[in-house]
Amino acid sequence: MSVYTPVAEAELDAWLRNYSVGRLQALEPIKAGIENSNYFVTTSQGRYVLTLFERLPASELPFYLDLMAHLARHGIPCPAPIADLADQYLQRLHGKPAALVTRLSGTSIERPGERECAEVGALLARMHLAGRSYGAYLENPRGPKWWRLAAADLKPFLSGEESALLEDELAFQAQHRFPDLPRGPVHADLFRDNALFEEGRISGVIDFYFAGVDCLHYDVAVCANDWCLDANFGLEPARAGALLAAYEAVRPLTPAERAAWPVMLRAAALRFWLSRLHDFHLPRPGMLVHAHDPAHFRTILECRRAS
Amino acid sequence: MSVYTPVAEAELDAWLRNYSVGRLQALEPIKAGIENSNYFVTTSQGRYVLTLFERLPASELPFYLDLMAHLARHGIPCPAPIADLADQYLQRLHGKPAALVTRLSGTSIERPGERECAEVGALLARMHLAGRSYGAYLENPRGPKWWRLAAADLKPFLSGEESALLEDELAFQAQHRFPDLPRGPVHADLFRDNALFEEGRISGVIDFYFAGVDCLHYDVAVCANDWCLDANFGLEPARAGALLAAYEAVRPLTPAERAAWPVMLRAAALRFWLSRLHDFHLPRPGMLVHAHDPAHFRTILECRRAS
Repeated sequence: MSVYTPVAEAELDAWLRNYSVGRLQALEPIKAGIENSNYFVTTSQGRYVLTLFERLPASELPFYLDLMAHLARHGIPCPAPIADLADQYLQRLHGKPAALVTRLSGTSIERPGERECAEVGALLARMHLAGRSYGAYLENPRGPKWWRLAAADLKPFLSGEESALLEDELAFQAQHRFPDLPRGPVHADLFRDNALFEEGRISGVIDFYFAGVDCLHYDVAVCANDWCLDANFGLEPARAGALLAAYEAVRPLTPAERAAWPVMLRAAALRFWLSRLHDFHLPRPGMLVHAHDPAHFRTILECRRAS
Repeated sequence: MSVYTPVAEAELDAWLRNYSVGRLQALEPIKAGIENSNYFVTTSQGRYVLTLFERLPASELPFYLDLMAHLARHGIPCPAPIADLADQYLQRLHGKPAALVTRLSGTSIERPGERECAEVGALLARMHLAGRSYGAYLENPRGPKWWRLAAADLKPFLSGEESALLEDELAFQAQHRFPDLPRGPVHADLFRDNALFEEGRISGVIDFYFAGVDCLHYDVAVCANDWCLDANFGLEPARAGALLAAYEAVRPLTPAERAAWPVMLRAAALRFWLSRLHDFHLPRPGMLVHAHDPAHFRTILECRRAS
């Protein structure tokens, strides 16, 4: 269960008077997600998601909320933060920083085909173009700096084999940084469960709370490692081809980006192997139910290293 | 036919690359509306309305577009302008100022009942609350100053009886101004055809191009004169009561506002009688098909004066 902070209907109805969204009609906790407390909120005006931030530093929240607002007003189907009557996106509820965002329609899909991979590739490219005019800056919070911190935290918990793999990959990545690739705000967590589909079209991208500024191409690699897996953890050529072709139809890759692809795929695998190891060995209270198996991304990393 | 400026599909598809909304799939002129050229635009991303501004001064357009953006991010279901890749709402197309806004779902209703009047009343109040934090200022472009200008233009075309009625009402209104009533951005044209309904709920308010800053209560009077008419042009008590009660549940009226209600209803009738006379006697080329009969609001004005 990922809802840490309970919210009562009467309390929420009173809190909603800070907004111009009408009266509360229904409140339902959302069990998915491991970082925040989330609720579906239905009012006389519409459908929203209420998020109470349990982990993120308050100083970073404006980056995420303003990024979603920026992308939404560029036509990207992402949750749009609702401003309160004081014209602020960030409120407090139950002593926690809290925000109300629009709820998108659609459902996530478990087994994407080429068509769905093309949809997500095109949307990712549109998101990257729209993000270029976003002014705020936050370094990717799960980027190379964090990899090294996480690796140090994890040291006591890893087998000799795991430690060797981790050290070797960190050394490889340190030798392959790309300061000249196009950078900008990236979602950095656009897995299948963070995309919604409706009638075969992508209708939403959700959960921007791992976003930051990084190589745009890294975002594509994060996607590919989840959307395009074959049964042996390799990239299935048809789906990976569809994702990349649709991306490039909107934002063509530079030669330097193309050359960096294998390294990006390894970086994307490393990042999720590390965070899943971290969640597994050093869980925060209340989040165990949704901890993912670290072995999945270890296998993906080994597969990318071998290819 | 209200589309003055023709737009070709190839031209629009190229123009849309200024945005991150995907490729053009369909383009359809909108025949309603008498002030701008409007098109329904469907892209691989979603459904939009393209507006080419034919009449409004370019300097005033940011007030309207930023107001819609402000209200949309407060959760008001109004068209949300889409920012282009340079982060601007206002573009140019075919030499005209142009903007792309979201297309809302729903249809307008011709014969509202108490429930629909309550829906529009509550939404109007939420819009007024959300508008309070809007920073830009534009005087209601169809306010008292414009009444006098329009009356002067119309003088040669009016019968003696019409002139007498107009002069008398202008004199009455000049004696009854309310500088102390709550003011803010008002829609100022929220007739039935500018509201969309879906499954019995109000799903959209459209056409903000007569908006400006004025008494909030005036906006309610404009609504009531259209939504709550009985067969004799009076206000039907059940519908007017539903509209006002729903409005007051969100934003209670002050005693001064309550006292000003009969004057507001007359002001709202006068404004539309004048603009319809103006469109009738001094039409712009191409707009005749949609010119409304001025007699309708003359009768409403006479009815409000008598009651």
